[in-house]
Amino acid sequence: MILAPDVTMTTGHTMHESDLFSEPAALVEAALTKAIEAANLPAHLREAADWGVLGGGKRLRPTLMLMSCRAVGGTIETSIPAAVALELTHCFSLIHDDLPALDNDALRRGQPTLHVKAGEAMAILAGDLMISLAFQQLTQLPVEPSIACSLVSELAGGTTSMVIGQTYDTLGGLPGSLEPREQLQLVHRNKTGALLRAACRMGGFCGNADESSMECLTAYGDAVGLMFQVVDDLLDVTQTAEHIGKATNKDHDMGKLTYPGLLGVEESRRVVKELEQRAIDALEPLGPEADPLRDLGRFMAIRTK
Amino acid sequence: MILAPDVTMTTGHTMHESDLFSEPAALVEAALTKAIEAANLPAHLREAADWGVLGGGKRLRPTLMLMSCRAVGGTIETSIPAAVALELTHCFSLIHDDLPALDNDALRRGQPTLHVKAGEAMAILAGDLMISLAFQQLTQLPVEPSIACSLVSELAGGTTSMVIGQTYDTLGGLPGSLEPREQLQLVHRNKTGALLRAACRMGGFCGNADESSMECLTAYGDAVGLMFQVVDDLLDVTQTAEHIGKATNKDHDMGKLTYPGLLGVEESRRVVKELEQRAIDALEPLGPEADPLRDLGRFMAIRTK
Repeated sequence: MILAPDVTMTTGHTMHESDLFSEPAALVEAALTKAIEAANLPAHLREAADWGVLGGGKRLRPTLMLMSCRAVGGTIETSIPAAVALELTHCFSLIHDDLPALDNDALRRGQPTLHVKAGEAMAILAGDLMISLAFQQLTQLPVEPSIACSLVSELAGGTTSMVIGQTYDTLGGLPGSLEPREQLQLVHRNKTGALLRAACRMGGFCGNADESSMECLTAYGDAVGLMFQVVDDLLDVTQTAEHIGKATNKDHDMGKLTYPGLLGVEESRRVVKELEQRAIDALEPLGPEADPLRDLGRFMAIRTK
Repeated sequence: MILAPDVTMTTGHTMHESDLFSEPAALVEAALTKAIEAANLPAHLREAADWGVLGGGKRLRPTLMLMSCRAVGGTIETSIPAAVALELTHCFSLIHDDLPALDNDALRRGQPTLHVKAGEAMAILAGDLMISLAFQQLTQLPVEPSIACSLVSELAGGTTSMVIGQTYDTLGGLPGSLEPREQLQLVHRNKTGALLRAACRMGGFCGNADESSMECLTAYGDAVGLMFQVVDDLLDVTQTAEHIGKATNKDHDMGKLTYPGLLGVEESRRVVKELEQRAIDALEPLGPEADPLRDLGRFMAIRTK
């Protein structure tokens, strides 16, 4: 997908999605394949894991993580297992969220979801597996054990928040004391924002970020984390299922709280612009090494799938 | 439950179950309650977690872990978060395994299972939550980061094996090249044995075990891990549901591969004795500090629920 040409990229050239994602995605793809292979799984579980993990996807969380690492002067190559851990965690959440008892989605990335393909039991088990494989990955990084511990803590915290967000999203139970917009933020920040924020911070840990750089990455992660879900809400009402590879208008049909539903499409787009700016501003103290991360923030604001 | 009085305990007195479990179980119970409280969960998720975690149970894995720690001279009090992590992991596996798509069990510890109580969506999410809370616990131990990393690796590896075992157990797919008894061992060692073995090894890590002590604990964990499931198979055919608090004769009804099903009750009892002896022998190089662990091995061989 080619981005709108009027978007000025930090790196100055007309940016294609492939410019941002191709290098990290290729590294992560190879490492994901290797991680599943190394787990020495029974054939049917291996097939399920391949289907759930290697079936495409933007690899956004690994890319955010690796770009965050680079932004603080870290090396991408040695940080790959942390990127793999993030993607495995993301894949687990998609597989479980798609289950009939939760969002009951039959289509994901233009393909049948795992429970449609391999049955509910396998989808539950394969999702569980991905969480343990994710944490195994974090113990395989060539970093100081104290950094590995920070990564475990960050990933576990992000996963806990994600489950809390999914619980609110699927089963309600939001604090009645909050205004609808605050309720919506609470869902989105947990359901999607927390793992994206964790990705940025994990990149910081892998790159040995100092405290002030870590604050930049955290603020950036906060902003793009919420922005991602607002854009997702917008795509759900403005795009076709064929284009984005999963069912659309689902949020509205299920009566879920969304930004366009609550604030309208125009106001939601304004929120996206505001969060994009907040993300870019957060990176201000970081040098040109953070340019790919700036571009990624801009891309996340205008993505169409 | 009072044990048969003709069982000679290492500690010399007539052993009650409470003698072995009361001290560690009370510490673990308090810490589990605190861990769930600290996660600051939405009310319905908190209720589900309480139901799934605090609803009783022998706390065998935490006890094994703490006794293993003590056996190598470690301190129980500072190792509690690792024990909590093990129990959370165990509870996650029970909740997911009980789901309709897997074992479809309505009764656990004499109470309705979580999906019966709170619905399938909540049971799936609460199970997921327990895995991330488990790993969060491991980052809260007052140990060297390198030890925390070993604990993460061990717990993640045990969890992966457990999922593999449950996949074999629920969905088949065992290598046809193996004899039935080897197939059975493969299921049991993964489904139940791996986490029990991990519990012993995690105790070793927390107690700063040297290499030879770690070998003792690993061999002990291997033996009691397999033994536990053989005893479980036996209880499934010899005890009432009322006594053990969950459905009995289920394995047989579902056509699952079990020790009594394959070898008969008597031969299975012989296997239990053999594994018990192997467990006790493995601890031979360890001193009197390992007595509680010896007693625990003996108890696991003769438990009636």
